[in-house]
Amino acid sequence: MSKLSTVARRLVLGRPFRSDRLSHTLLPKRIALPVFASDALSSVAYAPEEIFLVLSVAGLAAYSMAPWIGLAVAGVMIIVIASYRQNVHAYPSGGGDYEVVTTNLGPTAGLTVASALLIDYVLTVAVSMSSAMTNIGSAVPFINDHKVWFAVIAILVLASLNLRGIRESGTAFAIPTYAFMIGMYAMLAWGFLQILVLGRDLRAESAGFEMHSEHGEVLGFALVFLVARAFSSGSAALTGVEAISNGVPAFRKPKSRNAATTLLLLGVIAITLFMGMILLARATGVQVAERPLEQLGGAPADYQQKTLIAQLADAVFHDFPLGLYLIAGVTALILVLAANTAFNGFPVLGSILAQDRFLPRQLHTRGDRLAFSNGILFLAFGAIAFVVAFQAEVTALIQLYIVGVFVSFTFSQIGMVRHWTRLLRTETDPAARRRMMRARVINSVGLVCTGTVLVIVVVTKFLAGAWIAILAMSALFGLMKLIHKHYASVTRELEARAAETEDIVLPSRNHAIVLVSNAHLPTLRALAYARATRPDVLEAITVSVDDAETRQLVHKWEHSDISVPLKVVASPYREITRPVLDYVKRVGKDSPRTVVTVFIPEYVVGHWWEQVLHNQSALRLKGRLLFEPNVMVTSVPWQLSSSERLKKLAPQSAPGDARRGFLD
Amino acid sequence: MSKLSTVARRLVLGRPFRSDRLSHTLLPKRIALPVFASDALSSVAYAPEEIFLVLSVAGLAAYSMAPWIGLAVAGVMIIVIASYRQNVHAYPSGGGDYEVVTTNLGPTAGLTVASALLIDYVLTVAVSMSSAMTNIGSAVPFINDHKVWFAVIAILVLASLNLRGIRESGTAFAIPTYAFMIGMYAMLAWGFLQILVLGRDLRAESAGFEMHSEHGEVLGFALVFLVARAFSSGSAALTGVEAISNGVPAFRKPKSRNAATTLLLLGVIAITLFMGMILLARATGVQVAERPLEQLGGAPADYQQKTLIAQLADAVFHDFPLGLYLIAGVTALILVLAANTAFNGFPVLGSILAQDRFLPRQLHTRGDRLAFSNGILFLAFGAIAFVVAFQAEVTALIQLYIVGVFVSFTFSQIGMVRHWTRLLRTETDPAARRRMMRARVINSVGLVCTGTVLVIVVVTKFLAGAWIAILAMSALFGLMKLIHKHYASVTRELEARAAETEDIVLPSRNHAIVLVSNAHLPTLRALAYARATRPDVLEAITVSVDDAETRQLVHKWEHSDISVPLKVVASPYREITRPVLDYVKRVGKDSPRTVVTVFIPEYVVGHWWEQVLHNQSALRLKGRLLFEPNVMVTSVPWQLSSSERLKKLAPQSAPGDARRGFLD
Repeated sequence: MSKLSTVARRLVLGRPFRSDRLSHTLLPKRIALPVFASDALSSVAYAPEEIFLVLSVAGLAAYSMAPWIGLAVAGVMIIVIASYRQNVHAYPSGGGDYEVVTTNLGPTAGLTVASALLIDYVLTVAVSMSSAMTNIGSAVPFINDHKVWFAVIAILVLASLNLRGIRESGTAFAIPTYAFMIGMYAMLAWGFLQILVLGRDLRAESAGFEMHSEHGEVLGFALVFLVARAFSSGSAALTGVEAISNGVPAFRKPKSRNAATTLLLLGVIAITLFMGMILLARATGVQVAERPLEQLGGAPADYQQKTLIAQLADAVFHDFPLGLYLIAGVTALILVLAANTAFNGFPVLGSILAQDRFLPRQLHTRGDRLAFSNGILFLAFGAIAFVVAFQAEVTALIQLYIVGVFVSFTFSQIGMVRHWTRLLRTETDPAARRRMMRARVINSVGLVCTGTVLVIVVVTKFLAGAWIAILAMSALFGLMKLIHKHYASVTRELEARAAETEDIVLPSRNHAIVLVSNAHLPTLRALAYARATRPDVLEAITVSVDDAETRQLVHKWEHSDISVPLKVVASPYREITRPVLDYVKRVGKDSPRTVVTVFIPEYVVGHWWEQVLHNQSALRLKGRLLFEPNVMVTSVPWQLSSSERLKKLAPQSAPGDARRGFLD
Repeated sequence: MSKLSTVARRLVLGRPFRSDRLSHTLLPKRIALPVFASDALSSVAYAPEEIFLVLSVAGLAAYSMAPWIGLAVAGVMIIVIASYRQNVHAYPSGGGDYEVVTTNLGPTAGLTVASALLIDYVLTVAVSMSSAMTNIGSAVPFINDHKVWFAVIAILVLASLNLRGIRESGTAFAIPTYAFMIGMYAMLAWGFLQILVLGRDLRAESAGFEMHSEHGEVLGFALVFLVARAFSSGSAALTGVEAISNGVPAFRKPKSRNAATTLLLLGVIAITLFMGMILLARATGVQVAERPLEQLGGAPADYQQKTLIAQLADAVFHDFPLGLYLIAGVTALILVLAANTAFNGFPVLGSILAQDRFLPRQLHTRGDRLAFSNGILFLAFGAIAFVVAFQAEVTALIQLYIVGVFVSFTFSQIGMVRHWTRLLRTETDPAARRRMMRARVINSVGLVCTGTVLVIVVVTKFLAGAWIAILAMSALFGLMKLIHKHYASVTRELEARAAETEDIVLPSRNHAIVLVSNAHLPTLRALAYARATRPDVLEAITVSVDDAETRQLVHKWEHSDISVPLKVVASPYREITRPVLDYVKRVGKDSPRTVVTVFIPEYVVGHWWEQVLHNQSALRLKGRLLFEPNVMVTSVPWQLSSSERLKKLAPQSAPGDARRGFLD
């Protein structure tokens, strides 16, 4: 900044155009927690259940392993959170994993992480929405019966809200998140209180069924594989932990410390909820099966298996039926919020990738509504494709999920280890060195741990669906590589041209041509403006598409006081583009130092359908003229009254504003 | 023309830019006949059959009325052809019914005819393709089993051929048309020869079945209604007669006379084929039923009813099995050709309507590929919708058809009667008066006749499906009215402004702003060009979206030999559009007589995906700047090497070229 300001002192700096409605507020921790916590906490809604579902394959006996698997997941989570607390301190700029990896491991590794994260955003929407509909469907059977439709519609609604630019407020995040936390803690506390203190016998509705193993007794390697797979599915609880590392700049000062504290808080909440649910499920005897009608002996023929959360709420609040609806409601709410954060994160990551020229340049500008729109549409349609393809089954979708998250975790930790090693090379202060050594140890443990989980996840889920996610990541990686290559080749082309050209030839002559279709005001203004550029030659041309009309125009022109001569260009084939193009070419041919400026009067209108009715020929002509060297195309707008309605540029708000500290 | 040439003498007229590959050839009659005959002749493929199908409802006895109904249709056809011979003489300009009606009955009547014709083009494609697939399906059962698919694919293929711009040649029209004529005449001649001269007993495959009436004996009013309906369906044979009246300018001189002769020739061929088929069908005992398995006693359980033509070919060529395939083939071919003529006629009528501002203006230019493309796509998807909705059943589609044709026939004849009456008011030469009187009588007879048929068609078919066609016509009519109204209101707005403004304010000052994102060649060229327009102020501005990049740019600028000052506009929200817009506004505010010219360097690229990667921000900015008064936007193109591939403008060919005398 300092260099810019000295250089810029001689330049006129534009006043910052602050919008009065959008302000940059730094987040206090009590708001930052809900803003960043929804993805991490929402996964508690499905992760414990997925552990039980996988274990159900081996029958009821395997259920006893659930708490241990839960502990393993919690252990990994503690290590990951400890690792990310280091990231937050080392990279407070908000670049997240992509920045850490690109800086330390180079752009290819960074791009790998970016592809993984982009695909995982899509899957977050698909999984969260499917889970939301299954949870609310446990209370409202109608929704369960049509959950694909409801999930698709919910995604579309969310996408359109984001397209219109929802104003993000801390409250919008705080209410559902705190409601979910309170609801869950209340359920767990009241449940354990009843069992442990009041000595009540809480039984879930499925506790009485007799669960059969699907394939007889599962033993040896198969059992190991099954446990590993249950662990993989449970690791879904870790998604969302990295969110805070992208949002450090939005925190109040000391930013890094506050972010690290929030991260710790988030970890404590997630782990207690996660473990609490597993233990309460064991205590109430909940049984969930992948194919309930076949596996659960004693279940009625029309048995509709509820989610784990719903069964727990049902059992805990058996004398307060509203409890089920409340728990199902807040669970669905936080899941929708989690899906929404993907709608925020996706375009933000996109804009960082655009900055590095891996995505189209214009995605870089934050305020660019269209750029965000494309991202939102891409995300929505991707998620809908997954939801429809997997019929909104969380268990099926979860097989594709997490690979991306752990790719990014692992690369990030490799990057952090390198980061500390590099710093240690130059650092001499013993205290600092000791801090760095400790941080490197933490990140190394994180690396070993996340790397191991990644291997387990890929091995246990590859054939079950992870290959689809990996394929999609590879395709995205290839596409972004190609885009980068294109930009590089354009830069090279320009440099090569710059090397061979000594200097840009200064035009010695300016030949102005005004395109006329009618002798009305827009044309007169175009003529006046063209004259204001003081060209060496100024002429008006019209293309004779219709004899009668041309005759009329020429007559009107002759009898007006316009002093510019009107040339009629014949068009025997009733075209416009080619005759004008040929005329311009002939004018330009005379001298290479002549620059031809073509003035096109254009209507400016306020509705898209008016745009269809006007300017189409002009638009096409402009497109063609640009291919001619030494031609400039100037649009001279004529604002029709309908354009007034579009004149005001609406203040921009963009998805993900809250995470970057822009709040209402 | 004379006025134009005198006035134009003082103007430089552009050399007509004749494309070497496209030439305007006038059609000799032997080529004109096939070019215009395919729609009229192709309807012979289904019209006779539809008469028998309707009559089958009343059982075999009703079949004896078929020749009489055929004669009635033939009578109407003679009258219509006689009437249109008058049209051709009176309106040789090729405007067709739309021109006749607009000139004589005003724009609303004209628009009614136009809507009717446009919808009928859509139905022509649907009916012809369905009939083509049914006919070829009579020889190849596999096609019959999947005729909806085949019809849809055929429409898509035809549309894409037309989108790519098929070069039309006389041969392409002549071969299928003459093949169909020869094939049909050969079949009829050989058939009647066998029966009448050789005394053979030719029996169609369905001759032995016992046809039951569907509703017992049909009597009284029901019988009258049935006969009227059979007549309506048979009147489908008249479609396509009006085609020649649109194509008079393409004929060799004397144009009108040659067109009238061709029309007569066409009528003779159509009527002989039509009547010949009906009589041969009676002679061979062909039976066709709407529900063959229920109505035809004695038919095998897997009986697949063939088309009338196929059954005739089968019977006539019983000892030459290839005959069936040949006849089915040429029939399908001419039907496809008929569908193709709709692809030609639709955009041509569209361009005439655009000229009168009932459709977007740019559709007016003939060479406009995009305009034609939209028309072709609209037509294709409309036809596909009808084909799918009615399962490619000709009998169902025919209920919607013809209404449009007879609306246009009837209005056209009213217009012609008015035309002669108006001319008679001023004409004094007795010979000319006599000619006009006779023409008026002919057109009056035509009016009474077509009007009656229109009433019969509407009455007998309204509930059976014609209401759909009428609804579609009304919707189109309303849409075109709205478009017209919009153009009129724009014209009024400009006139009102012209009245209140004495003169366009001449700008006194030209403030040029060059938009800079980088100090590379495209920017340097933009600066050089901007300087060539000798502005009063010339400055370069850049929007600081990214601090580091801006610092680099400013540094580079400072150390280059560019003398134009670079202003940095701050953009705290990482937008581009709004800061530039605000800056331009502030510049313009100083003085209302200042015109601001914004120069935007633009890359010109050769692939659409490159377009996605470049210029998007510039494009959006341009769009916004146009809303500012007193601002001109100038694109300064920089042609990247990939743009070379698009530089050549391919010579244009448009659908319907042949009908307007443009041949290869």
